[in-house]
Amino acid sequence: MRRLINDPYNIVEEMLEGFCKAHNKHVKLLENDGRVVVSKKAPVKDKVGIIIGGGSGHEPLFLGYVGEGFADAAVIGNINTSPSPEPCYNAVKAVDAGKGCLYMYGNYAGDVMNFDMGAEMAAAEGIRVETVLVTDDVYSSTEIKNRRGVAGDFYVFKVAAAKAALGYDLDAVKSAAEKANANTRSMGVAMSSSTLPITGKTIFELEDGDMEVGMGIHGEPGVRRTKIEPADKVVDEILGYILPDLPFNEGDEVSVLVNGLGATPLMDLHVAYRRVAQVLEEKKIKIYNSFVGNYATSMDMAGMSITLMKLDDELKELLDYPCDAPYCVIK
Amino acid sequence: MRRLINDPYNIVEEMLEGFCKAHNKHVKLLENDGRVVVSKKAPVKDKVGIIIGGGSGHEPLFLGYVGEGFADAAVIGNINTSPSPEPCYNAVKAVDAGKGCLYMYGNYAGDVMNFDMGAEMAAAEGIRVETVLVTDDVYSSTEIKNRRGVAGDFYVFKVAAAKAALGYDLDAVKSAAEKANANTRSMGVAMSSSTLPITGKTIFELEDGDMEVGMGIHGEPGVRRTKIEPADKVVDEILGYILPDLPFNEGDEVSVLVNGLGATPLMDLHVAYRRVAQVLEEKKIKIYNSFVGNYATSMDMAGMSITLMKLDDELKELLDYPCDAPYCVIK
Repeated sequence: MRRLINDPYNIVEEMLEGFCKAHNKHVKLLENDGRVVVSKKAPVKDKVGIIIGGGSGHEPLFLGYVGEGFADAAVIGNINTSPSPEPCYNAVKAVDAGKGCLYMYGNYAGDVMNFDMGAEMAAAEGIRVETVLVTDDVYSSTEIKNRRGVAGDFYVFKVAAAKAALGYDLDAVKSAAEKANANTRSMGVAMSSSTLPITGKTIFELEDGDMEVGMGIHGEPGVRRTKIEPADKVVDEILGYILPDLPFNEGDEVSVLVNGLGATPLMDLHVAYRRVAQVLEEKKIKIYNSFVGNYATSMDMAGMSITLMKLDDELKELLDYPCDAPYCVIK
Repeated sequence: MRRLINDPYNIVEEMLEGFCKAHNKHVKLLENDGRVVVSKKAPVKDKVGIIIGGGSGHEPLFLGYVGEGFADAAVIGNINTSPSPEPCYNAVKAVDAGKGCLYMYGNYAGDVMNFDMGAEMAAAEGIRVETVLVTDDVYSSTEIKNRRGVAGDFYVFKVAAAKAALGYDLDAVKSAAEKANANTRSMGVAMSSSTLPITGKTIFELEDGDMEVGMGIHGEPGVRRTKIEPADKVVDEILGYILPDLPFNEGDEVSVLVNGLGATPLMDLHVAYRRVAQVLEEKKIKIYNSFVGNYATSMDMAGMSITLMKLDDELKELLDYPCDAPYCVIK
């Protein structure tokens, strides 16, 4: 246990208090719901409302991506637990500007149930809410619709938020999010577990020096467990799953996200990025732009994931669209 | 050992290759020196050259702060080791635009020796190079000039770089850096050691569940070692050293940096930030703005540091000045 916390039963509230104070130029807590982080600019006139969310413990996902040109609100669950329906609904009430709202989140059963209930509550008041589930984790299922959402969330949220910021209607925004999701693939590796504040214990056992390829961000089982291998070999294995899955082909243009799971140094992420770039170059897949850092974490888990999004002109424009959120500024 | 690396003797080169590929819109490696990361905009006409650097293992410090409106170059040493004099000199040759250069780095003996030799080599060619050492770590010495530089580097570099970007001469830029350093105080706590790639071992022993208050970013000894305490108590102890040291007084306005040392979740950093904000509010010290995240790390060390910089109108303007570096975008 190497965490720096107070009362573990109050950790999400304390985090939210600190977050909204530290980033008070961008966000605030909703007055009537302490589990909704809203942009200070929301609701934005004539714009589709962008609402993201899910369990805590993946910071800066989700709340770090609330701000101008990005999400209008994030709905916050307990650690590794979906938010309940009420904050999902309250987020809609807070950010809807008459053009409806889009829910986006990783595909987990609890989130689907609760966000769907939030959407029904909104529908009962005549507010249209559509949903796009992120399903980028290639190893989590052979069927795409059953796959989990991991760091690819970042790309799907960014693209849809930009489409909304450009003034498009809900159908167009949803369609952009679906395209981003359809073009995005991820897979990760864990070198340690993460520590649950309430128990003070790790969420699963992983011996020091071991790694598990394909593990999910809540510790869902992966492909295989072995001694930690050289970074290049790990990257090659992950790309061996990702590249044929879409597939990514010679001549394609991609955005690359090398994501840290929380406890892996930026040094190691760049060593891994170097190999990703080498492999893509060999395969004549062009890198349009890249992100390297902690974008979707699992608290203090050591590990790394690789995400590729295949781009076209529309996705490039939306990815480059300016945004100003606490953990993503693009100018 | 939970690191994801290849050949530990080649890790800095591999990191630099990955870094310059991932962030190729901002930076490149100097053609004649693989240990100098330079901004693609450098040299900037009529601008003082801003050169930062030091040992590797503290990423995003130093290379992540090279870019427009920030540093023109970072000189890169091996892990926890100063760069040698040649790259310090080569950085000057690469970024000097006729107005001289400012070296800035944390106050460590090896860095002082090597950067000073670089400055002498430049002086022999008629290029003026001045130096400002960062000395923000309050616990490292009772004498300010003997203190080490830690996360306060970020503030000192940012302020001086903005002053240079505004077109001021070397004396004025140096003076702004000195003011920022004089107004900045930091202190940290470690909950784990960090792992040296070459040995595969931690740089010091710290039992799981223990913490050391006041520890340096290379594992320099702190105030006391104890079982990990509640976050609020740790923050109170750190502020108990920082606040009287400057001193920070009622009515002062400050910038706050809650810095992660590498393996501490953003969740915990915000829990800690919450307490910093509470204490400053009680003491009627106004928070102007805040930074929360991994700004100056020690690879995979679990831990956190708090930095405060006391502001005046000039420092506020310089802190807010736009910059576009791989790990700091201010717009």
